[in-house]
Amino acid sequence: MKQHGEEKKEQVITPWEVTGGSEDGVKTGIDYKKVMDSFGCKEIPPELLERIERQTNMKVHPFLRRGIFYCHRDLENILDRHEKKLPFFLYTGRGPSSDALQLGHLVPFMFCKYLQDAFGCHVVIQLTDDEKFLVKKDITLEDAKRYAVENAKDIIACGFDPQKTFIFSDIEYYSEMFENILRVQKTVLLNQARAVFGFTSEDCIGKISFPATQIAPCFSSSFKHIFGDEDGGPALIPYAIDQDPYFRVARDIAHRLGFHKPSSICSQFIPGLHGIESKMSASDPTSCIYTTDSQGEIARKITKYAFSGGRDTLAEHRRLGGNTSVDIAYQYLSYFLESDAELSSIQQQYTSGEMLSGELKKRCIQEVQRVVGLFQERRRGVTGETVKQFMAFKK
Amino acid sequence: MKQHGEEKKEQVITPWEVTGGSEDGVKTGIDYKKVMDSFGCKEIPPELLERIERQTNMKVHPFLRRGIFYCHRDLENILDRHEKKLPFFLYTGRGPSSDALQLGHLVPFMFCKYLQDAFGCHVVIQLTDDEKFLVKKDITLEDAKRYAVENAKDIIACGFDPQKTFIFSDIEYYSEMFENILRVQKTVLLNQARAVFGFTSEDCIGKISFPATQIAPCFSSSFKHIFGDEDGGPALIPYAIDQDPYFRVARDIAHRLGFHKPSSICSQFIPGLHGIESKMSASDPTSCIYTTDSQGEIARKITKYAFSGGRDTLAEHRRLGGNTSVDIAYQYLSYFLESDAELSSIQQQYTSGEMLSGELKKRCIQEVQRVVGLFQERRRGVTGETVKQFMAFKK
Repeated sequence: MKQHGEEKKEQVITPWEVTGGSEDGVKTGIDYKKVMDSFGCKEIPPELLERIERQTNMKVHPFLRRGIFYCHRDLENILDRHEKKLPFFLYTGRGPSSDALQLGHLVPFMFCKYLQDAFGCHVVIQLTDDEKFLVKKDITLEDAKRYAVENAKDIIACGFDPQKTFIFSDIEYYSEMFENILRVQKTVLLNQARAVFGFTSEDCIGKISFPATQIAPCFSSSFKHIFGDEDGGPALIPYAIDQDPYFRVARDIAHRLGFHKPSSICSQFIPGLHGIESKMSASDPTSCIYTTDSQGEIARKITKYAFSGGRDTLAEHRRLGGNTSVDIAYQYLSYFLESDAELSSIQQQYTSGEMLSGELKKRCIQEVQRVVGLFQERRRGVTGETVKQFMAFKK
Repeated sequence: MKQHGEEKKEQVITPWEVTGGSEDGVKTGIDYKKVMDSFGCKEIPPELLERIERQTNMKVHPFLRRGIFYCHRDLENILDRHEKKLPFFLYTGRGPSSDALQLGHLVPFMFCKYLQDAFGCHVVIQLTDDEKFLVKKDITLEDAKRYAVENAKDIIACGFDPQKTFIFSDIEYYSEMFENILRVQKTVLLNQARAVFGFTSEDCIGKISFPATQIAPCFSSSFKHIFGDEDGGPALIPYAIDQDPYFRVARDIAHRLGFHKPSSICSQFIPGLHGIESKMSASDPTSCIYTTDSQGEIARKITKYAFSGGRDTLAEHRRLGGNTSVDIAYQYLSYFLESDAELSSIQQQYTSGEMLSGELKKRCIQEVQRVVGLFQERRRGVTGETVKQFMAFKK
């Protein structure tokens, strides 16, 4: 029986909140088709993936093959430019709110590193330490700056090309892009900002003007030390779909400012251990795997917390098979298992009831341990000197 | 007879608009007592002026003797500190919206120079080139930056001590005070900003967060290159009363940020040539005297445009006398004539009908020509090198 007020809850996808909807009190997960349609993005069709493979002479990343990066805006424009050897650059970022990343935070950087390898272009990576200070009551400026440096180390460990990658803290780099920030601040009116970002009267004035700081790096003239007075071309921005409001506004105003419209390529969220309806949340340790977790902790967390798509009894499971679309171990394998053939075989075995949840979790644990282990090995090699090299912009 | 809708218009005093009220369609000028009361400032009593003279061993400036700088907040605190040889500093500023200043713009700087001489303290002077770009549709960043440098030359020509005066463009200096700007941006909520500054939904997001940029220099830690890690003490801020909202907010939040509450000393507006109900407006050339006007132009403008408090006919004037409280020539003399005895004698002669409007204007022209002439002479000696010296902050 329907409970009063429980009939239907809409999903919420903003830069500050991501929660799936519910119907009749039952969580319905995140409807990515709906997000894409309401944000005005387009699905990435197989032809476009084939074109990328042709142009880059390499297989597209699993995140693309498996629809994790699933929609885009004007990706064709970037491919056209690449074909004509015209410049463009990659832009992504991270809000540094803790000392260590969790697994979900690596997704855009792993993908961005693939794009850099495939297209051989410059990457700029923004650390929004200013915003974290502004929006989080308990984060001091000192915390935010420390998190930024620690997060930079994690990002570097994803394998970016030191010659073509610039990582910047907003607090450090602000003045270099200040003129573009002002240009954006002048173009965006309060009513537009409220409509797109849902600001309320209780938000601080820093939060209200911050969108300009995340928008300015969409434009190559914000990076004079990289591009000089040359036109660096448009940005291609890989991001999780909750960040879309910033880049929607960037596209709206680019022409008025005499800048290139940026292109987008957007991902779904890696689900938290508890289920597909929410993303990994650093504020709930049982929902996520940290990049600092030991091999044992990874095994324990997946075994104990990963929501299973298996059936209640062994007999039932053998008879009906598991449900991969809600099974977190399977979801993680679809992120991190390189072999399409093995993934497909796992899916077939699990849905047929041949493979049990415990077996699936075991395979997932191996893959996550491998990815995190590799990451940790590279991370150990990142020194303060390396960070300085990636973050340098002053002559 | 009263016209419908014309009964009573309230005066408007904000950083972006200054107009006196009207009653029954008749302009009533600006009611400074009312502004002071509604902003919560206190009148400066004679005892305080005497105390300043005692402490500084010099006669107070005519602007103080004649009530042009007429109200304050916590001026006693500054005098207490001066007595105890504890540090404080002066902070004032200018919005650079044109290449040349008009006479009214000199008032806060002439007064600030007197305070520097009297107290021997550091002065910081903000050029809000960022704000002018943000709020003026037709001003480009290049314009605003050029105006800032030109205005700096005018300010230097007011005679500041090069050893103890720092003039800064927001665009140039922003990053040095960015952490304090962020602290202020985090503390001021949108609803407070709307209440104090009257922002509307049509204002750009840059304008909404700008108050933080004018507030940050109230705190000495925004000037590390002057004060190092020492506490520079509170700011004493001389300003025209329309700028009060910024410093009211600064005082509200100072304690929460662990900073000294700034003190205020506020002036009335030098009236425009057309009459006491409005201030000199650079956008109406017949309302103001520019610092670049020739001696002939000064004479012509005052003769032609200065609103007179004289009577309609000679006979009537001799019989009833002139009205100094609305006479612009007299008002200007009260700003710029050094001798109290002569000013008092002029008032007596004019109000008794002995002195005619033409004679009063002639004396006014002499004084304004003297002040502007002196200014122009000093201005000619200010080079690009001098500007660099006053605006230097990088090692």
